[in-house]
Amino acid sequence: MKTQNQLKEEVARKALQYVKPNQVLGVGSGSTVNIFINLLHELPFKVEAAVAASKESERTLRSVGIKVLDANEVESLDVYIDGADEVTSEGFMTKGGGAALTREKIVASISKSFICIVDKSKKVENLGTTFALPVEVIPMAREAVSRALKKLGGNPVFRENCITDNGNIILDVRDFIIKDPIAMEQTINNIPGVVSNGIFAQNKATLTLVAE
Amino acid sequence: MKTQNQLKEEVARKALQYVKPNQVLGVGSGSTVNIFINLLHELPFKVEAAVAASKESERTLRSVGIKVLDANEVESLDVYIDGADEVTSEGFMTKGGGAALTREKIVASISKSFICIVDKSKKVENLGTTFALPVEVIPMAREAVSRALKKLGGNPVFRENCITDNGNIILDVRDFIIKDPIAMEQTINNIPGVVSNGIFAQNKATLTLVAE
Repeated sequence: MKTQNQLKEEVARKALQYVKPNQVLGVGSGSTVNIFINLLHELPFKVEAAVAASKESERTLRSVGIKVLDANEVESLDVYIDGADEVTSEGFMTKGGGAALTREKIVASISKSFICIVDKSKKVENLGTTFALPVEVIPMAREAVSRALKKLGGNPVFRENCITDNGNIILDVRDFIIKDPIAMEQTINNIPGVVSNGIFAQNKATLTLVAE
Repeated sequence: MKTQNQLKEEVARKALQYVKPNQVLGVGSGSTVNIFINLLHELPFKVEAAVAASKESERTLRSVGIKVLDANEVESLDVYIDGADEVTSEGFMTKGGGAALTREKIVASISKSFICIVDKSKKVENLGTTFALPVEVIPMAREAVSRALKKLGGNPVFRENCITDNGNIILDVRDFIIKDPIAMEQTINNIPGVVSNGIFAQNKATLTLVAE
């Protein structure tokens, strides 16, 4: 029986084959992505530069000698590699357990492909069933957005001691069963005060690599 | 011929009749709203408290002795009073010339009615024709969102030396002709990196007061 860390390393290593020379790499955030960054030295070429979806990933990239570019400095990326909290067989995902969802969504949106790296515990039939859905919210809209999310059938909980890289707060929405991810992503985005939400359906995974 | 300031004062004074005793008042931002706040002493009762859509309006409210509440402290507001950059006969508006659009939209969303106070120069047939549409954007998404707005037919210009109260930037989108404000508001909200946009269609004006 493999440990969860061994599974993360296995899937992170699988993702290496999708990294090609002379490309700026997009990297997400979280523990599996950290392992992935630390495996990049195994490639037969040097990754010159990357765009990162969190300050933590920026630090890890710099620590292994990779130059970090701002998303505004690149026209597009070929590959974005990131984990997920949940992923369906269609490639729809929820993300944001680490509070980096908005930046992850921005970097994913400029990338031609999204390679999702997860262990098998993240595979789900319906999004929202195993993980509360994170929503990034302007602080003054906390209660207004909570009321709107309750109207949609969810049970939002304010994430204590958490300020995002953008200076906002996170509501974790429990009890959402997300049958139509594209529609739900849009509905939540249209609540005034919502910066973004953890449903990745507009920009879903192109390829999901699963360690099992 | 009245000056624009006289028109602003005229319409601000008209709005006073919609302020009732024992209510928390919602106030927007901008020059007409500042005049409105400074006319509140003409009411035969004292306005006890207000929720403000900008730090500037907060200061003006405090300077006339009105307590300022955070939006999170109230369940709902009866009346929100604000100006607009453009308003149609249906009550659809564009706002955000003063960069306070996101907070304005949040406060408007918790209010039962939106009283829009404008001078006649703001009345338009189609939104987007007389005023560039402001879009509030996470700084790292400036170029990605600009590209997306160009695909939608607009011509976004970065607003120099402008950081919103939420720490973000503004893109002013020229050459948008907004035929379907509700659809366009939603489409722009769904671009990753967009915090909100200046189309007020989901929460449109309940009543428009025009000075002419």
